[in-house]
Amino acid sequence: MLSNQLHNGLETAKLLWSRIPNSEDGEVDGGSLLRNSNRNTVESLDYEVIENYAYREEQAQRGKLYVGYYVAVKWFLALLTGIGTGLAAVFINISVENFAGWKFALTFSIIQRSYFAGFVIYVLINLILVFSSVYIVTHFAPAAAGSGIPEIKGYLNGLDIHGILLFRTLIGKIFGSIGSVGGGLALGKEGPLVHTGACIASLLGQGGSSKYHLSSRWLQVFKSDRDRRDLVTCGCAAGVAAAFRAPVGGVLFALEEVTSWWRSQLMWRVFFTSAIVAVVVRTAMGWCKSGKCGHFGSGGFIIWDTSDGQEDYSFEELLPMAVIGVIGGLLGALFNQLTFHITYWRRNYLHKKGNRVKIIEACLISVITSAISFGLPLLRKCNPCPESDHDSGIECPRPPGMYGNYVNFYCGKDKEYNDLATIFFNTQDDAIRNLFSAKTIHEFSAQSLLTFLVMFYTLAVVTFGTAVPAGQFVPGIMIGSTYGRLVGMFVVNFYKNLNVEEGTYALLGAASFLGGSMRMTVSLCVIMVEITNNLKLLPLIMLVLLISKAVGDAFNEGFYEQQARLKGIALLESRPKYQMRNMMAKEVCRNQKVVSFPRIVKVADAVSILQSNLHNGFPVIDHVRNGETLVIGLVLRSHLLVLLQSKVDFQHSPLPCDPAGVSKSIRHNFSEFVKPVSSKGISIEDIHLSSDDLEMYIDLAPVLNPSPYVVPEDMSLTKVYNLFRQLGLRHIFVVPRASRVVGMITREDLLIEDSEDPASVELHSTSGASSI
Amino acid sequence: MLSNQLHNGLETAKLLWSRIPNSEDGEVDGGSLLRNSNRNTVESLDYEVIENYAYREEQAQRGKLYVGYYVAVKWFLALLTGIGTGLAAVFINISVENFAGWKFALTFSIIQRSYFAGFVIYVLINLILVFSSVYIVTHFAPAAAGSGIPEIKGYLNGLDIHGILLFRTLIGKIFGSIGSVGGGLALGKEGPLVHTGACIASLLGQGGSSKYHLSSRWLQVFKSDRDRRDLVTCGCAAGVAAAFRAPVGGVLFALEEVTSWWRSQLMWRVFFTSAIVAVVVRTAMGWCKSGKCGHFGSGGFIIWDTSDGQEDYSFEELLPMAVIGVIGGLLGALFNQLTFHITYWRRNYLHKKGNRVKIIEACLISVITSAISFGLPLLRKCNPCPESDHDSGIECPRPPGMYGNYVNFYCGKDKEYNDLATIFFNTQDDAIRNLFSAKTIHEFSAQSLLTFLVMFYTLAVVTFGTAVPAGQFVPGIMIGSTYGRLVGMFVVNFYKNLNVEEGTYALLGAASFLGGSMRMTVSLCVIMVEITNNLKLLPLIMLVLLISKAVGDAFNEGFYEQQARLKGIALLESRPKYQMRNMMAKEVCRNQKVVSFPRIVKVADAVSILQSNLHNGFPVIDHVRNGETLVIGLVLRSHLLVLLQSKVDFQHSPLPCDPAGVSKSIRHNFSEFVKPVSSKGISIEDIHLSSDDLEMYIDLAPVLNPSPYVVPEDMSLTKVYNLFRQLGLRHIFVVPRASRVVGMITREDLLIEDSEDPASVELHSTSGASSI
Repeated sequence: MLSNQLHNGLETAKLLWSRIPNSEDGEVDGGSLLRNSNRNTVESLDYEVIENYAYREEQAQRGKLYVGYYVAVKWFLALLTGIGTGLAAVFINISVENFAGWKFALTFSIIQRSYFAGFVIYVLINLILVFSSVYIVTHFAPAAAGSGIPEIKGYLNGLDIHGILLFRTLIGKIFGSIGSVGGGLALGKEGPLVHTGACIASLLGQGGSSKYHLSSRWLQVFKSDRDRRDLVTCGCAAGVAAAFRAPVGGVLFALEEVTSWWRSQLMWRVFFTSAIVAVVVRTAMGWCKSGKCGHFGSGGFIIWDTSDGQEDYSFEELLPMAVIGVIGGLLGALFNQLTFHITYWRRNYLHKKGNRVKIIEACLISVITSAISFGLPLLRKCNPCPESDHDSGIECPRPPGMYGNYVNFYCGKDKEYNDLATIFFNTQDDAIRNLFSAKTIHEFSAQSLLTFLVMFYTLAVVTFGTAVPAGQFVPGIMIGSTYGRLVGMFVVNFYKNLNVEEGTYALLGAASFLGGSMRMTVSLCVIMVEITNNLKLLPLIMLVLLISKAVGDAFNEGFYEQQARLKGIALLESRPKYQMRNMMAKEVCRNQKVVSFPRIVKVADAVSILQSNLHNGFPVIDHVRNGETLVIGLVLRSHLLVLLQSKVDFQHSPLPCDPAGVSKSIRHNFSEFVKPVSSKGISIEDIHLSSDDLEMYIDLAPVLNPSPYVVPEDMSLTKVYNLFRQLGLRHIFVVPRASRVVGMITREDLLIEDSEDPASVELHSTSGASSI
Repeated sequence: MLSNQLHNGLETAKLLWSRIPNSEDGEVDGGSLLRNSNRNTVESLDYEVIENYAYREEQAQRGKLYVGYYVAVKWFLALLTGIGTGLAAVFINISVENFAGWKFALTFSIIQRSYFAGFVIYVLINLILVFSSVYIVTHFAPAAAGSGIPEIKGYLNGLDIHGILLFRTLIGKIFGSIGSVGGGLALGKEGPLVHTGACIASLLGQGGSSKYHLSSRWLQVFKSDRDRRDLVTCGCAAGVAAAFRAPVGGVLFALEEVTSWWRSQLMWRVFFTSAIVAVVVRTAMGWCKSGKCGHFGSGGFIIWDTSDGQEDYSFEELLPMAVIGVIGGLLGALFNQLTFHITYWRRNYLHKKGNRVKIIEACLISVITSAISFGLPLLRKCNPCPESDHDSGIECPRPPGMYGNYVNFYCGKDKEYNDLATIFFNTQDDAIRNLFSAKTIHEFSAQSLLTFLVMFYTLAVVTFGTAVPAGQFVPGIMIGSTYGRLVGMFVVNFYKNLNVEEGTYALLGAASFLGGSMRMTVSLCVIMVEITNNLKLLPLIMLVLLISKAVGDAFNEGFYEQQARLKGIALLESRPKYQMRNMMAKEVCRNQKVVSFPRIVKVADAVSILQSNLHNGFPVIDHVRNGETLVIGLVLRSHLLVLLQSKVDFQHSPLPCDPAGVSKSIRHNFSEFVKPVSSKGISIEDIHLSSDDLEMYIDLAPVLNPSPYVVPEDMSLTKVYNLFRQLGLRHIFVVPRASRVVGMITREDLLIEDSEDPASVELHSTSGASSI
């Protein structure tokens, strides 16, 4: 039974809690985290709120106009994210293409005189580019290393990983990937672009970077974490859309691979962002066609148009295609396993020795990569050019300084080409274009392809995990298309009368390797269709992906999941673990001591409780008149710290603040309770209180969350997990079984109509349904 | 405090509950429903369980082998669903094309002699087709009327609408849509195909139709409702994939528009089903190309290849495109409003007068449609054919009996064509192909297009809601492409020097009308891209959709939402209603009397409780030793009825069954508790008990759900709604505030690893992660 006074206090709490931004169901539980943080290698994990209806309520109180403004800002920021990511992608692509184009042009002109001088120049240019990349990353933006997708996944799952969304990370990522990709390492720029998009979105969502004085007050509208995460989701989709010029693929990637909580309202905004990216990239490419962008133009964005590929397929071909799927699953799973072990070793031994080792390692790998990609083609005998076919428009050998299929490299005669140089001594985009190319049967020898496959696979495994930005898409496509083309060559020789294109098999091989490694399904399928601009291959790609994912799943987890686990990013999966079925809620919190606050707490007590443990949320328990206790809510450490720091809510009497003076008791500006974005917030050690202060009291009722979700103590942990995961919670109270049931809520009780008559409802404007 | 005995009983309950199929958190709450059922026009709404972990637990107990078998069955059924839906789509398309082709061929051959005889024949054939359709629907399968998408949406939202997924509905839908589409009404076959796919999936999921002796025991594996709903989701995607040959669009449609609970594990299976459909349809079309399918071949599946359309667009064109978006939003919203009012009137007045009125109505509309589509082109003056352009391959006039652009109809000279007949006196697929066609500038006059727009819009509004299967996609595309082409013509005249294709504007118009009416976004975008096979138009389609959806949302709800509301299908939306913010949990159940059971209940009492109300779930409350009460779980009406009917669990003593004899107390075969699929289950009136039986007792502990979700009585209804909606619940107990907190569960507590060392975990096979 509630005493009247308490009841008033709780009403106040409900009113106030609903006005504190960013304050729903628990928050910032670093306490339980830090207990376990030693097994994680991530420096700091913070927790933030995901759902925030209270905040939306606050908006509503400010009126319809504000809501409209808020929605407009959301769309405007999505627009800016799209434009920003598109421009970043264009910048990276132009830079990489120019560096690489200039590098190959210089090397080709030098090897006319001396192959040794050309080799030295080639190695040196690559080394300089890679060194600049690794230097930027190690000294300026350590969080920019790697692909970034596991970290973003963790962030959208509810974790805060320190540093991944800072301005310096963005800069490091952009310039780092220009260096590492331009330097010819066996890695791609697509994963980093996803991270770049997420960084841009995050910076926009928090109104710029305050550290670099780039912030703008009028952009700082997003006070809730949910809005920021939504924008980061848009950024991820924009990154994929920019990397592959695949707007639909970007949306599906964000949906399938990255986010943890998806709302259909968000889908449209994500799609909008992707479309903006597509428009920006298209415009930029149109502008570059006139030659204003140097070497950029014919290369660059990975769009490998295979529309002149195989139109039809026969049933006999399904068997070799299934074989490609199996190979993809096996090689993909092996790739995951090898990179896992090597990354594990790097993290625990090699990279602990400091930045110098990281730099030496990257430079060493650069030199080895350059030596192999230059040296191996030298050992390969050249082949005579095939009969010229003017219809196909493919010249042999390709003119110097141009992109094309048949590369004349270390050949005795003019009309010869080196098939290994065509794929190895080339930019990755051009190599893939050559592997996918139709009407070039017998261009490659099986020996060259096999050599390339083994060498490039090894290089890709070794390279991933160095301290440079590194994506896995393009290397995966390279590896996959190589063995795909090998299978295609076999099919051409075996079924001689079929209208088989090796390029189509190369494409299927690429899909199979990515499927076997990353285990994406729908998004990967759509991305492959969009980059090849060929819808007709969709069923074949699906078949291959189905097989390769199934085969890969038989061995290990997906690439991103493994990397995330390695980095200590503990994702809450959507399904509860198997052993939770036999556990009860109280079992997981058996060793915890529940530290609770009374409603009116003495400041000294509050400080000592906060100092004595690291919990981030505390139950508040009040005594009602007859001596019984009652759980009246949850108070967060961060809110307590704000109260203690500002001191305006201190009172002399240990009695609740006057219920009549509810409005007076709100002495805080609620923006003080907003969680800071980049800093770690205040700590109890930072707060200095005089001995007078310590003797005073605080009434917690105005700042507590009056009804966190509760579960009975003997509920199955599976159910608890679902509640926690589906609603994106931070804290759940485990309480004893109830003694009575006040009511029962069923579907019908929740079908509250806006009005009585269903017909008249329709005639009203229901524009509310459209607000995002 | 639990007494020991009670505790044992609860442990038993937990064990047993986990083995009762289809028995998670509440179920079948017809009670609270029937209270309100008078305002619904649907005959019967049943409730079923959506989440069912308990069932999966049962599987697990049966061993890994069974799980493997179960997963295999799921995929196999998805495969069958795909094949079945694909074949159904092929059958419908071949039939429609043949009926329509034969109809037009006959009419054209007769009008060579007499236009009046041709008119009579044309009207009669249409009338016969439409009559057969409406007869089948009214007399055999009433649930097959309309599009079916709102009903499927309701089903996947957790409602059971009587009859929508029966075998007879499937048959009625297939043959009904052949009649209605073949009969030339202003409606499409795409919505019905989605319903067809869902029916096929549902029938497969329940192992065939027992009523028609088509069931197979070994297919009856799916005992949980969740699996059946998943399969129906696959069926919906398959329907869209078959209707538009758009596998990706199908997946996105199922995701965005149809389902309410989406799991990423399901996505891949849905995609697989869509791919199977694509393969089936492609194979069938390849087979038909050789002429084995009569008139089918060049027409049929709606794929309007616009790849020879406009490649590029300039910034000046964005304005007319935006205008198309605005028009689409306005006309779409108007369409929704008009169909809403007309359907409302039909349901409440016209169709209450019986089947005869429905048949007369449909026949009348058929005659009017025939008369208009034949008569209006007669009034139109013919135009001379444009200069022949052999490159484009478009002949003028088209050869008799073929499909093509320029129709010679009631023209004086040979080298003339009738532009209104080209779109009006034609199958809808061909009309759309003509409207989308490139390189046919000046084919249509503005007057003809405007006439067609007004007449067809009116016809589409009037036709929807008659008792025939009716989709809205193709009519929407017709309407949209007409005004789109009008705008395109204006652009051609205004910006004379642009490389503008009217067909591209027609496509954008189609997208804008569908967006303005159905308010789909991503899925519609992808469907439009897939049916036109032109990825390059994606950004433009998005722009247009963005505008038309925003404009439409300013006026009313989407088409399907309105129709669902009209049919009394009360969908639980994903967002809580605005006014829930200011309500508390106990407020919505204030007028309810909670009827609870004791743990050991006398049979007579149980019968009287079940007779006295219509609730479907009851709290079970036990008295512990010291006289306090304790809520020990939830028991379902359906389970109680099974207990009462079988009588094997009756006992003479009012004491709990012996805890030591746990296994003996399970006297039921658990399949008895499975919810029946098509019948309504047993009712309390069907159970006959002797007076001896009435004096006996039942121990409810073995059949109760020991821990339903609970909420404190003063929790905000918004939070309650989220809990209910996100987890797909049926019952929530509203309980008083707890007096103490036993523990606190945070993220870290739920991160239970399979093993201690994260590195060694990786080296294990984690194939469990791949099980669906």
